[in-house]
Amino acid sequence: MDTFFVLTVSMIIFLMQCGFAFLEAGAVRSKNTTNILLKNLLDSSVAGLSYYALGYAFAFGKGGGFIGGSGFFGSFDEDELSKWFFQMVFAATAATIVSGGVAERCEFIAYLTYSIVLTAFCYPVVTRWAWHSNGWLVDGSVIEGVAYQDFAGSGVVHVCGGVAALCGAVLLGPRIGRFNSSGKPVPIAGHSVPLAALGGFILMFGFFAFNGGSQFTISNPGDGVAVARAIVNTIISGSASGVTTILIHRAFTSTKRNCLQYSTWSLLSTINGILAGMVAICAGANVMQMWGALCTGIVAAFIYYFTAALVSKLRIDDPLDAVAVHGAAGTWGLIAAPLFDMNGILMTGSKESGQVLAMNLIGWLAIVAWTAVICATMFGILKALKTFRVSEDIELKGLDIPKHGEPAYPSEAWGDGWGEFLQASHEGLGIQRQSKLESAPVSVQERI
Amino acid sequence: MDTFFVLTVSMIIFLMQCGFAFLEAGAVRSKNTTNILLKNLLDSSVAGLSYYALGYAFAFGKGGGFIGGSGFFGSFDEDELSKWFFQMVFAATAATIVSGGVAERCEFIAYLTYSIVLTAFCYPVVTRWAWHSNGWLVDGSVIEGVAYQDFAGSGVVHVCGGVAALCGAVLLGPRIGRFNSSGKPVPIAGHSVPLAALGGFILMFGFFAFNGGSQFTISNPGDGVAVARAIVNTIISGSASGVTTILIHRAFTSTKRNCLQYSTWSLLSTINGILAGMVAICAGANVMQMWGALCTGIVAAFIYYFTAALVSKLRIDDPLDAVAVHGAAGTWGLIAAPLFDMNGILMTGSKESGQVLAMNLIGWLAIVAWTAVICATMFGILKALKTFRVSEDIELKGLDIPKHGEPAYPSEAWGDGWGEFLQASHEGLGIQRQSKLESAPVSVQERI
Amino acid sequence: MDTFFVLTVSMIIFLMQCGFAFLEAGAVRSKNTTNILLKNLLDSSVAGLSYYALGYAFAFGKGGGFIGGSGFFGSFDEDELSKWFFQMVFAATAATIVSGGVAERCEFIAYLTYSIVLTAFCYPVVTRWAWHSNGWLVDGSVIEGVAYQDFAGSGVVHVCGGVAALCGAVLLGPRIGRFNSSGKPVPIAGHSVPLAALGGFILMFGFFAFNGGSQFTISNPGDGVAVARAIVNTIISGSASGVTTILIHRAFTSTKRNCLQYSTWSLLSTINGILAGMVAICAGANVMQMWGALCTGIVAAFIYYFTAALVSKLRIDDPLDAVAVHGAAGTWGLIAAPLFDMNGILMTGSKESGQVLAMNLIGWLAIVAWTAVICATMFGILKALKTFRVSEDIELKGLDIPKHGEPAYPSEAWGDGWGEFLQASHEGLGIQRQSKLESAPVSVQERI
Repeated sequence: MDTFFVLTVSMIIFLMQCGFAFLEAGAVRSKNTTNILLKNLLDSSVAGLSYYALGYAFAFGKGGGFIGGSGFFGSFDEDELSKWFFQMVFAATAATIVSGGVAERCEFIAYLTYSIVLTAFCYPVVTRWAWHSNGWLVDGSVIEGVAYQDFAGSGVVHVCGGVAALCGAVLLGPRIGRFNSSGKPVPIAGHSVPLAALGGFILMFGFFAFNGGSQFTISNPGDGVAVARAIVNTIISGSASGVTTILIHRAFTSTKRNCLQYSTWSLLSTINGILAGMVAICAGANVMQMWGALCTGIVAAFIYYFTAALVSKLRIDDPLDAVAVHGAAGTWGLIAAPLFDMNGILMTGSKESGQVLAMNLIGWLAIVAWTAVICATMFGILKALKTFRVSEDIELKGLDIPKHGEPAYPSEAWGDGWGEFLQASHEGLGIQRQSKLESAPVSVQERI
Repeated sequence: MDTFFVLTVSMIIFLMQCGFAFLEAGAVRSKNTTNILLKNLLDSSVAGLSYYALGYAFAFGKGGGFIGGSGFFGSFDEDELSKWFFQMVFAATAATIVSGGVAERCEFIAYLTYSIVLTAFCYPVVTRWAWHSNGWLVDGSVIEGVAYQDFAGSGVVHVCGGVAALCGAVLLGPRIGRFNSSGKPVPIAGHSVPLAALGGFILMFGFFAFNGGSQFTISNPGDGVAVARAIVNTIISGSASGVTTILIHRAFTSTKRNCLQYSTWSLLSTINGILAGMVAICAGANVMQMWGALCTGIVAAFIYYFTAALVSKLRIDDPLDAVAVHGAAGTWGLIAAPLFDMNGILMTGSKESGQVLAMNLIGWLAIVAWTAVICATMFGILKALKTFRVSEDIELKGLDIPKHGEPAYPSEAWGDGWGEFLQASHEGLGIQRQSKLESAPVSVQERI
Repeated sequence: MDTFFVLTVSMIIFLMQCGFAFLEAGAVRSKNTTNILLKNLLDSSVAGLSYYALGYAFAFGKGGGFIGGSGFFGSFDEDELSKWFFQMVFAATAATIVSGGVAERCEFIAYLTYSIVLTAFCYPVVTRWAWHSNGWLVDGSVIEGVAYQDFAGSGVVHVCGGVAALCGAVLLGPRIGRFNSSGKPVPIAGHSVPLAALGGFILMFGFFAFNGGSQFTISNPGDGVAVARAIVNTIISGSASGVTTILIHRAFTSTKRNCLQYSTWSLLSTINGILAGMVAICAGANVMQMWGALCTGIVAAFIYYFTAALVSKLRIDDPLDAVAVHGAAGTWGLIAAPLFDMNGILMTGSKESGQVLAMNLIGWLAIVAWTAVICATMFGILKALKTFRVSEDIELKGLDIPKHGEPAYPSEAWGDGWGEFLQASHEGLGIQRQSKLESAPVSVQERI
């Protein structure tokens, strides 16, 4: 039954690739949509092959606390197949976080490189530390008998992915036009709110499996409650963070622009807020009561929102707010877990719970340092080789056509021949055409 | 294992939020798309928090047959966590039905109010009556030993949601332009059939879990068959209703318009027809044989189709046909269950089965009255406070930009710089540009 | 538990209808989008009713090796309900493959006919042969004691569907403009890459359930490993095929066009490549080690890619490459299974394994002949009755409006009234409007 459980949640977690793909596709301009979809699609394929060849061996092969060394190319016991699949979809998730940070300007070859490095080496080593029984973060060697606490990967997955995205965004530099001549941020709107919302919904769906599935078994006594608790805390933390975010955003945007009273309820911020809440609860989803998840979510909203503002202020261009949603909220998750744990700092105030917090900060530091060093080196080399960023001409005009030969919405595939006929029947029905409402005759659609 | 089962189906039911979101997003105009997506997204967050704070306690806390009174703010036993999640996603579903009825003109604050009231109080009380062992509809007190029969909520969820939507639509009044000066309905087309179809597919997927999951256990003898039966009947009833709907619609639209022989196979009606069939089977999905589901579905198609026509004739503007799909088909479901039950009226003609039908009608009346009183009061107050409907200016120009600051398809995010290049290569390939087919040079796209 | 397992995977497989719908919707022009969505939506309804009435009885009723003869109209034991649902969603999948091959020009009545014939008769008989214990392909009567090996239906589902699509595409003839006057293929781009990608992602998700679920039980010893193996091999083969396909495509498209160095990383080919890999692994997913799946996937990419090119060269218009993805890769799957089986030709070189290959070729021949005869007859009759292909006028102008009365993106539902206001605020923010980048003032959008 545990196999069935693991496979079911893994399939659903796999669908998070689809969620990331559409969250990102909606957030980029139409001229780069095929590009970002392809990156997200290939992430799962690349992760599949990289994790098969190397990643799983580094993470769960026989060996010491730093890295494993057996099980390359599928040479592990067949009983581990479901575990392989589960861990692989996690690796793909970590990799796909990065594509948000480097969107709309990164070379395809550079993407392939970081995707392979992350899923074959960088991320698997982190999982070794935290999720293998020999891992140096959990074997009790750093602080006697105390283990790093990160149930579903606030640190392992999200901080790792967020730091990689940050390195990419910094080294790549902002998109042309993202900051004006005086350095002030200029918003670059994505081309489709519905696609972004679709991605958000699918990610929420996936997060239940991501957090619930991290129990990894459901047949032992107590498993059922632990899984249920993880899932319930996921929706509570996500909900709290989403509602908090929409209120924060509204409070900060109530201004008059022209003669209109603006009071914006932002969908896109809310989606990110919900995701930040779900990221933050990862670490402690199985050990908190619902009020703990509520607090974790509320704080996560502030952390996400102001980190995003800070990143923008620092003139770093992170198109999907990957740093704020994954990096920052993941960091908060590592603190929140020992804090709101039913046996944690707030409830017991015990020395042990404080040590777990310390251990989590050590783990956080290790993950950040490891990921930053690898990613900075890798992206630095790519930059030196001039294969990191597309040419200015291609960035301005869009990547889809020169790089992929596939515009997302080819103009010749649009339109029909029924114009006159419809015009007549609309007039018969009394439908007012929008074009009469709108005075401007020129439209902007995918290329001419 | 039952926990695993309940959690799995609950996750899938959660995805119905995504289904409703896109069904509705496709059915509104592009200028109100962000608005409707945000409402559907927040429904799950609001339901999560409301149900945590109050809803679950009212529905399943200790207490009498009308309302429960313990378990507020998560203060219930940890064994109930999976049940909480399951019931919460049901509550979110009931709330989200309403957003269809009030689409394109409802104030955001009003939406927040009804979403909270429905998921925190109105819907939980109905579930108390029908789905808690103490509930007055099922404890055998009304008709000696006879219980209201509503397996997956034709009445509890869909009639409740449908009546709330009806109250909202009536009190809000029709959208500007929905009825012409002589009171005849003028169709207002939604902006994207693909988005609506996406929503329909996801809802169908979700309905299997919704109806199958209502068994709530799968480990007892007979559970497996009951769940399988519920799922099989869902597809049979939905299929029968969908096919019947497309034929009804075709029969009623075979007319000549201009010189074209019209014979329309309607996708949007078919989606609604399938959903109506799945709504109608909710009540009796676990006790009918397949032929019963077939009959339920065929009748559901007629009920949906002609209720929708009637609502329109009454000059009520229900953009998503929520009243017809959920309210009317749900009502039919409460009748169909005792009728086609394997031990029901048609098969046995027993007195007991007739009593169940009577009990179902009593339950229906109670749900309708309760929901109508609460919703009419609530919407009436909102209307009196002038926070129910957006201003005429905003309704005409669209809600997304003034209310949310996020147009669904920002024009500056569209287009690329490869026009001339593509023109040349297209001519080389001999691709005829659509614009040559179409004489009119002016296009209507999201704002100039 | 097995019931739970079967129902869970069946629900997910059902979602593949949604996957096919969007893969195809993205690949057609906007004027035919409603048409293709409706076909895919109805496939599941038609399959539900056809399989209920006839299909299941032909496939799994009592009877001989060629066709079953009991269980019509749901008259089977209630223990078989979950099996019915599982087999029904498979039948719907087989039927929906065909809609790709006949897209953009097939009459709706013709579609209904083939959908019924396939799910009620043609496909069920094939499953009888291969998946019923009495089936003549598996009862050991053709080659003493040797059974046709096709775990999840490379042959049963995909070759059957692919051959039906080929018959349809050939008899229907190419779309107007698909081949120029000298017979050279002219690409007809679909209208939305994001919709196609959405379909691809959902199909990948569904394939895990499709291949894993074919074990049909998970409670027996060894079941868990078999299911895990099938799922792992699915992602490995799909990944290998996807990565191989993108490299093949890039190798064949590295050309200079105008002054641009083209080096196209194709998203759409990659999606098809991944699907081809997942189709090819169906037959042997449960018996291969991961390296076998890797090899299966790599070869599948070549087979898909060059079959698609060949079909095009033969002036057959298969808009979705259904023949290449399903027919050709499915054929390869029937060879790959005995080849890479852990007890197969490459590992043991045993006589038995060679006999299985022979048996698979016999099965392939039988499936191809059976499907081709039925489909050629059926489509031939439809053609003779002149109800196979829409009129030239409707094909040129699009099917959605005359046939369905529902344009996919109605122009009157687009646009808002905030143009001037936004113009001002954009200029304030310094956002460069795309329209300034682009010199051409005329746009092509859904009808004027």
